[in-house]
Amino acid sequence: MLAGESPDTAASRLGPDLEALPHLPAGSAKVTAKRAADLWEEAGLNPDLRATLLDHPVDDLTVYQGNIENAIGVLRMPIGLAGPLRVNGISAHGDFPIPLATTEAALVASYHRGCKVITLAGGCSSMVLYESLNRAPAFVFETAREACLFTIWAVGEFERFQEIAATTTAHGCMVDLGTTIEGNHVYLDFEYTTGDASGQNMVTISTQAVCDDIMARSPVAPQRYYIESNLSGDKKASTRAFTTTRGKKVTAEVILDADLVRKQLHTTPKEMEDYWRMSAIGGVLSGTMGIHGHFANGLAALYLATGQDAACVAESATGVTRFEVTGNGSLYASVTLPGIMVGTVGGGTGLPSQKACLELMGLAGSGKSRALAEVCAGLLLAGELSIIAALSAGHFSRAHRKLARGRNSSSGPA
Amino acid sequence: MLAGESPDTAASRLGPDLEALPHLPAGSAKVTAKRAADLWEEAGLNPDLRATLLDHPVDDLTVYQGNIENAIGVLRMPIGLAGPLRVNGISAHGDFPIPLATTEAALVASYHRGCKVITLAGGCSSMVLYESLNRAPAFVFETAREACLFTIWAVGEFERFQEIAATTTAHGCMVDLGTTIEGNHVYLDFEYTTGDASGQNMVTISTQAVCDDIMARSPVAPQRYYIESNLSGDKKASTRAFTTTRGKKVTAEVILDADLVRKQLHTTPKEMEDYWRMSAIGGVLSGTMGIHGHFANGLAALYLATGQDAACVAESATGVTRFEVTGNGSLYASVTLPGIMVGTVGGGTGLPSQKACLELMGLAGSGKSRALAEVCAGLLLAGELSIIAALSAGHFSRAHRKLARGRNSSSGPA
Amino acid sequence: MLAGESPDTAASRLGPDLEALPHLPAGSAKVTAKRAADLWEEAGLNPDLRATLLDHPVDDLTVYQGNIENAIGVLRMPIGLAGPLRVNGISAHGDFPIPLATTEAALVASYHRGCKVITLAGGCSSMVLYESLNRAPAFVFETAREACLFTIWAVGEFERFQEIAATTTAHGCMVDLGTTIEGNHVYLDFEYTTGDASGQNMVTISTQAVCDDIMARSPVAPQRYYIESNLSGDKKASTRAFTTTRGKKVTAEVILDADLVRKQLHTTPKEMEDYWRMSAIGGVLSGTMGIHGHFANGLAALYLATGQDAACVAESATGVTRFEVTGNGSLYASVTLPGIMVGTVGGGTGLPSQKACLELMGLAGSGKSRALAEVCAGLLLAGELSIIAALSAGHFSRAHRKLARGRNSSSGPA
Amino acid sequence: MLAGESPDTAASRLGPDLEALPHLPAGSAKVTAKRAADLWEEAGLNPDLRATLLDHPVDDLTVYQGNIENAIGVLRMPIGLAGPLRVNGISAHGDFPIPLATTEAALVASYHRGCKVITLAGGCSSMVLYESLNRAPAFVFETAREACLFTIWAVGEFERFQEIAATTTAHGCMVDLGTTIEGNHVYLDFEYTTGDASGQNMVTISTQAVCDDIMARSPVAPQRYYIESNLSGDKKASTRAFTTTRGKKVTAEVILDADLVRKQLHTTPKEMEDYWRMSAIGGVLSGTMGIHGHFANGLAALYLATGQDAACVAESATGVTRFEVTGNGSLYASVTLPGIMVGTVGGGTGLPSQKACLELMGLAGSGKSRALAEVCAGLLLAGELSIIAALSAGHFSRAHRKLARGRNSSSGPA
Repeated sequence: MLAGESPDTAASRLGPDLEALPHLPAGSAKVTAKRAADLWEEAGLNPDLRATLLDHPVDDLTVYQGNIENAIGVLRMPIGLAGPLRVNGISAHGDFPIPLATTEAALVASYHRGCKVITLAGGCSSMVLYESLNRAPAFVFETAREACLFTIWAVGEFERFQEIAATTTAHGCMVDLGTTIEGNHVYLDFEYTTGDASGQNMVTISTQAVCDDIMARSPVAPQRYYIESNLSGDKKASTRAFTTTRGKKVTAEVILDADLVRKQLHTTPKEMEDYWRMSAIGGVLSGTMGIHGHFANGLAALYLATGQDAACVAESATGVTRFEVTGNGSLYASVTLPGIMVGTVGGGTGLPSQKACLELMGLAGSGKSRALAEVCAGLLLAGELSIIAALSAGHFSRAHRKLARGRNSSSGPA
Repeated sequence: MLAGESPDTAASRLGPDLEALPHLPAGSAKVTAKRAADLWEEAGLNPDLRATLLDHPVDDLTVYQGNIENAIGVLRMPIGLAGPLRVNGISAHGDFPIPLATTEAALVASYHRGCKVITLAGGCSSMVLYESLNRAPAFVFETAREACLFTIWAVGEFERFQEIAATTTAHGCMVDLGTTIEGNHVYLDFEYTTGDASGQNMVTISTQAVCDDIMARSPVAPQRYYIESNLSGDKKASTRAFTTTRGKKVTAEVILDADLVRKQLHTTPKEMEDYWRMSAIGGVLSGTMGIHGHFANGLAALYLATGQDAACVAESATGVTRFEVTGNGSLYASVTLPGIMVGTVGGGTGLPSQKACLELMGLAGSGKSRALAEVCAGLLLAGELSIIAALSAGHFSRAHRKLARGRNSSSGPA
Repeated sequence: MLAGESPDTAASRLGPDLEALPHLPAGSAKVTAKRAADLWEEAGLNPDLRATLLDHPVDDLTVYQGNIENAIGVLRMPIGLAGPLRVNGISAHGDFPIPLATTEAALVASYHRGCKVITLAGGCSSMVLYESLNRAPAFVFETAREACLFTIWAVGEFERFQEIAATTTAHGCMVDLGTTIEGNHVYLDFEYTTGDASGQNMVTISTQAVCDDIMARSPVAPQRYYIESNLSGDKKASTRAFTTTRGKKVTAEVILDADLVRKQLHTTPKEMEDYWRMSAIGGVLSGTMGIHGHFANGLAALYLATGQDAACVAESATGVTRFEVTGNGSLYASVTLPGIMVGTVGGGTGLPSQKACLELMGLAGSGKSRALAEVCAGLLLAGELSIIAALSAGHFSRAHRKLARGRNSSSGPA
Repeated sequence: MLAGESPDTAASRLGPDLEALPHLPAGSAKVTAKRAADLWEEAGLNPDLRATLLDHPVDDLTVYQGNIENAIGVLRMPIGLAGPLRVNGISAHGDFPIPLATTEAALVASYHRGCKVITLAGGCSSMVLYESLNRAPAFVFETAREACLFTIWAVGEFERFQEIAATTTAHGCMVDLGTTIEGNHVYLDFEYTTGDASGQNMVTISTQAVCDDIMARSPVAPQRYYIESNLSGDKKASTRAFTTTRGKKVTAEVILDADLVRKQLHTTPKEMEDYWRMSAIGGVLSGTMGIHGHFANGLAALYLATGQDAACVAESATGVTRFEVTGNGSLYASVTLPGIMVGTVGGGTGLPSQKACLELMGLAGSGKSRALAEVCAGLLLAGELSIIAALSAGHFSRAHRKLARGRNSSSGPA
């Protein structure tokens, strides 16, 4: 937002007016190829990608070679559009259309509403704070004394381990080594950066090479070892990852003035803060890791659309949402997540529809993973704004009833 | 397995021999329409479903009405086949082919291997132990004294609340009411059964009706209330759900004799128990909820294939895996999960490819959700057997390198 | 506080003026028998107890029979006085002097300050919300199927189990039975009320009798069983106890007007809310169970003084502190703890100095344990007010430096 | 144990034969001054300390100056003797008599039994693995961008911060600085070594000096700051401390041959491993931090006896106990605790009875805190051995009934 510019003027620069969407007239929530084609136009999406996502959505099965075994067919999910979301990040700058793959009614509408209010406010800040992916082999000794001697030796070999890891990949880099002794067991926690890949396989291969070296050279011979000890937090929420980083640690924030909150979200900063406080305690009483509303919804939908590993939703959906009224009556809102697992190369990111979604955002290929993480954090901030607004104002259950009612009622309630 | 029958004889009754799959010769891991068609034959899959999943994988966009907003296209993911998995459950009986939607190399091969060894052992037991889904509104009072008086009143109105809930759905049923007082806040935790739907919207609608009644009749007027307090554990791992139930609580177990372990998994019960013990501590040291290997992988792939909410992976991927050597040297293995979120009606279960996957297993429509949960638990047991076997025997990193190598190497490692 | 009465008028009814204490002139923090004797007078403490606590603090060692083995002597700790604390509870009514046993400088002064501000405000509400103590035996079976059949049987025997438990104690009562199946293991979670005893031994003895009955009569024979499975949460913080109750669940609250906060705590409701919000996130980021400041300090000091089990501090020191500014600018403050472990009979409560401390508060013997729990919650509320005031206003480190400086400086800082 | 020596021979060198104690004839559990005096003789305790602990257990109240405010008297608890415990540590070497202050029947007897079996086995290994105590101030900014800029600056000032900290203490040393950004909040986590003091006040004073410097010099001005953000884990169990270190991280282990287990503990390594496995799952299902039996009992009793802060039991009572059968049928047992909070100077360590207890062990004063932590870990290992033996063999409830029966029955059950 330019200095001195009002939110409404700023909004007029946002291109296609998606204002009507969250309160759609019956017709505009309609799902048809025609309406979808219109949306491509209205939202100014790159028309070259329309063929892949909308017009000819069939892939030659061979494109999935290396991503599946025993292939017997193809699953389809609809992609809905949220945004544009304005992100003022370190790596991500601009207005991003957000493709979300989901089958849950109201999800896209809710995130879209949040994106819109953020964009109207001039965009959110979003920053990758730290990057790290670990693999944690375990070594078993006869005694704790041997475990200690081994650990001391291993710490001294760090530079050699880095060199060995470097021989296995040109993209990743071993950056740290943590150690945990438990009785006669030693857990080595190798931390890596992984370039623009999400990197789970990369760190496995590097760590395997390092373990081969350890087993060949250690002055204290382990009785046995395991390449992964279950300490790494791979594919599950863990307090260790929550208090450090797994993948990319990100924070995103926005300040919304009271008028915008009232006009777009039909509530007030004070009501949202009140709900936040109660829901923070609710989260604490339920024993979640961190406190937030529904990170998993946006994460799953964006991870799927962009070819990330959907199983990583389990580990990524932790963190902290914070809402408070500022000194001048605006709403301060932030999200912080310690474990965004995204890549823009490798995994499922090169598959036809997934790659098209990345390209839709301008985030495909090398050099884009940090920007994708920042957009992801912005999206989750949008989702928190939207759901907390709905819950603080009492609109939550109504939206779900309305948006799901297009469904064939013979399939029963959900 | 019939009485007196050897595992090998039992195996001969399993139909298509999928033995070769996990150690596929280069060619048979090939992903082509031809190879997929062959797999339909070899695995004896219902040929009527082939058109939907393999031959004409294009949907009229209008089928997604009620599952998406702002639709702009269709995402595709490959479906791989694991199994058949023999399940001896309360609701699920028989040999189930398992469709898994994923883009992660080695995932299907790993789960398939586990399914196979379970089936060769005569199948796994699997049981839904409890069913419950909650919605937890919060009520704010001026003082804790009012909060207490309100709570006492609400507990006494339980039967009326049940009647009100019953007017909103013919499928679900309010079965319990928990209460939590924190200062002047009251959290009411309404528990429901939800028939064969996963049920998140059903419990929202029922609870809204009950809250309307409360606000109209409560002798102690709340200052305000919220339909969801963030106490329910919706879409996130929570210790409250972990120690109770959210969705369906299931346990599955199998006993594998030492020969089977050696022949199929290339390790021994003792080695697997040793790995399990170390990895249980590793999980505890990393601070996961429960201790397990990689529930999220199988959950995400099966949830996606069968039209479940992928975001629920965040809440479902907790629980306990336990491996031990029995008195006669066999391997006892079990998994227990408190929060399987599956339905066979509603949500995404009626969409073309998702419904076809449910039908492939014979688990589409009413009366099938408990069986689906039992098959799901059996699948996760298969995944734990396979990964712990690989890790205990040192095969883990090799499998990942091999199965991902078909991928275009220019996109770099992942 | 009577209707229409100002806080200052209310304060004038509080008896001895302890106002000067938290800002003691150098001399009055002096620790001497003379000054202690003066405090007995000034605070109007029951003079009959002075002999036990102050004048002749030597016990015949035989009084410890049944509380210790291999006795070799006696440990001494100083007792400091906080309060009086006005509690408007369900069971506790009145102004309670609070004896605290500790060796940590500043602890008594800090709690005293909090007690004083509460009392000046007319007292805190405090309520025992629920009572329950559990013992959780485990039963091991060959298969999960047997585990299920056993569980179904056990649930049906609940009334008989109650009768058996009733034969072992006239004070406690079995009130519920929870069940947890994990593979072929069954955990039975027997819940009891325990009268005015803290009750750990009582529930062990009752549960042993029930287990004897189970082993004699169960139609499905367990392979083995254990009287305690480590599920009960005994002597350790657990999320299961945090989300339910262990011992006594209590909540206490107070509303302080802005003047009182400024005058007594030298800060403002808004500054305290701001600190609370930040510290709540700090607690969440550090991964505590619940969010609070320093429950353990007051718990340990009161548990020790009143003969409770000091090890129970580990399980009791969880819960939620909440501070917020009310509509009219006052401070709302509450604490809620799910696991206060206190008794007024049994354990160490009958020992000379411990019993004298209970009598000092008028809380010794039968019928007093709920009141003690309510006073305890009020004390912890006082501690939260005091520390959050100090931290929000920047006085924290100064107080610690000042009050510890009497110590022999040659032993260095601590 | 000398090479080639049998455990029985080794036992004969242990000095006073305490063998009979855990199965005491009625008379020897008697608590009298005479019996206590005999124990001083039999156990060879330093007779110079007898006056302080047993013969003249009265203190001039002035010794408590600097440890208490508003002193009104003295609390007494009995001290029981466990051990000798043989510890083969890095800092602790030899046979240590263990004074335990408690009012809980059976506690001393249980720990004593564990000490005895460890000593008969030749002693336990015990090692301080890491030392660190943190203080975590928080800084509030207007935006996350400022928070980031501040953090980058602060990290670069680490050496200056070290110098400032060094001006406040000759005993402690700032060794690390962690940073956590959450939206526009920054938590700086200053880590220190604290010499032989437990150190909570030392790190507060040092951090205050550093914060003064930050507020004077930071190029990005915080809106406000707090000396403690509730991130440090002070006085409460936290997952952050559990996965790192708070105070002293220690591990202790012992290997017991099957004969010793059978003879002294009346069970077998296999039965103990079986119980351990079930109880580990039980702990996981109850949601404890780590998995262990009853660390809090030994911690509280030793902390009290040696003048540590009893409130720290809340933070210290987490960790991992592991039992397994070794290749040759012996029992491997270990405990690992990340947060032992002990000092041998400062706090309550200089008070008469507390200092005497430290001197009894030869662990008073400078240069002894690591040894005390190693002895503490050994003691907790003893407690785990004893309780798991009792529970695995079914003796648990009997011991509690028997040892508490000396108590005046009119005071009711406990």
